Parts: sequence; structure tokens; C-alpha cells
Amino acid sequence: MGHETLYLDDIKVGDTFTTGTHEVSAADIKRFAGEFDPQPFHLDDEAARESMFGGLAASGWHTAAITMRLLVTSGPKLSHGVLGLGGEIQWTKPMRPGDVLHVESEVVALIPSRSRSDRGVLVLRSKTINQHGDVVQDLTAKLLVMRRPA
Amino acid sequence: MGHETLYLDDIKVGDTFTTGTHEVSAADIKRFAGEFDPQPFHLDDEAARESMFGGLAASGWHTAAITMRLLVTSGPKLSHGVLGLGGEIQWTKPMRPGDVLHVESEVVALIPSRSRSDRGVLVLRSKTINQHGDVVQDLTAKLLVMRRPA
Repeated sequence: MGHETLYLDDIKVGDTFTTGTHEVSAADIKRFAGEFDPQPFHLDDEAARESMFGGLAASGWHTAAITMRLLVTSGPKLSHGVLGLGGEIQWTKPMRPGDVLHVESEVVALIPSRSRSDRGVLVLRSKTINQHGDVVQDLTAKLLVMRRPA
Repeated sequence: MGHETLYLDDIKVGDTFTTGTHEVSAADIKRFAGEFDPQPFHLDDEAARESMFGGLAASGWHTAAITMRLLVTSGPKLSHGVLGLGGEIQWTKPMRPGDVLHVESEVVALIPSRSRSDRGVLVLRSKTINQHGDVVQDLTAKLLVMRRPA
């Protein structure tokens, strides 16, 4: 897809979008966890090695936040921005220090609103993938999208 | 519930947990958005007033991250920590500057693993609620829980 502004009318089921990349450091992982998910396996290398993660692992919410950054900065250019109503999220593998992530998305549904003719819901499945090709997060989000003004 | 360490065997469907509170400032909202969700309605008061939010609104992922902080620091004391496998999330209202949030959770299911006798899945529904009693986020999370060692 190009960089033009997209309305619901410009998008169809099966359309795909690929973002740029984002690298995460051990310091990033510990800083996010210190503020939002202060558990030993996200904060401390030694404690993480002895945990079921077997080494420092990021908070799943950190993976989600980086996914959002990638979608906002290099994902589909929706006319009113990336406006999430909610979704389903699965963390399939831990995000690790040094991981270089990108997001691959596919439109799985487009639902025009019955009550408000200017908008609809875009259902977008976004896989967050590391440099080894492993999916670390699988998100199916419901985004508000606007219709092209008449 | 008290502060003892909880295993799957100590928890039953219908158990509830209430966290402490967390206040969010406009500066917090803009800082999180600057790093993870750089869109005008999360970053700039003027742009936010003119957006469909009608004023500065936090990223939904910021609400999710604060919810995690509250669950980790004052939610159920699970034996191995709060280990999310995934879940379903809905943002029902924007989180605003000055909001004071807490989380009310209820156990909706407990699923012992068929293949690994030492663990299971706890399905926890967590509503994130502001100082007006409005639910800003409704999360149903699947958490890994361990069984009490024999």
C-alpha cells in the first residue's frame, strides 16, 4: 500500500501492511517493567534466569506498546489515526533483549456501522515478529475507521 | 482475599480482588504516547480538543499498562507472579488526565492443564474503573497459574 490517507472505502479484506522495525534493549525492558510490570523476570537478569522464562523477558504489555508504535508510525495511514476499540491478544513467545521487531497485518473484516453512516470497524490481525521470524504476539484489533466524505 | 501466596488450588470461580489506586497526569499521558502511540489526540491538548475525543485522551495501551501495574502491585498474589498468556481487551471510555484508577477483578474460569499436572489457566476478568465509577477498560485475561506442590 502507498502512503495516501485511507478510508474504509479504500480498504478490502485481505489487504496487508508491513511496518518498519524497532529494536528493544535490556534497558528498555527493565525501564518499562519498572513502571508498569515490576516482576523479577522482567527486571533482573539473575532472577529471570531462574524463572520459567530462563532469561530476561519483556512484559507482554511492552510488546503490545511497541506493536502500537510500529502500527502508528509505519502501518496503514488511516484517515483519523489508529483508533482501537479493543481486541484479542496472545503472547506466543517472550520478547527478549536485542529483539528487532516488525508487524505484519492483514485485514480480516470490514464492518460498516448500521447506525452511523460516516464510520465502520476495521478488524486487523497484526503479528509481531522478531528477527528470527518468530511470532511474539498475535493481536486481532477492532479499529474505528471513517468512510470517505461524500 | 489476604496476602498469602495463591496457587490454583486456593482459587475458585467467583473470587474477587480489588487493587489500590493509581492517578494519571497529563504529563504521563503525553510521555507514554510520545514513546508508544504518537498520535495528536494523545499528545497535544489543542489537537485533542478538535479530535473525536474532545480533549486529551490516553492511549488504550497506557490504560492496559497501568492496569497491569495495579494487578502486579496490589492484585491477587499468585505464586509465580502475574503471567499473561493473552486475553480480550475492550476500551469502553478514554482515560483522561487526573483520572484515579483502580481494578476490580473476578475469576471467571479455572482450567487445570491436561498435559502438565503442575499448572493451569486462570481466566480473570478485570475492570479498570475511574474515580467517577466509569469502566474505562474491560480485560479478560488468561493467566498461567501453578498448582500447590504436593
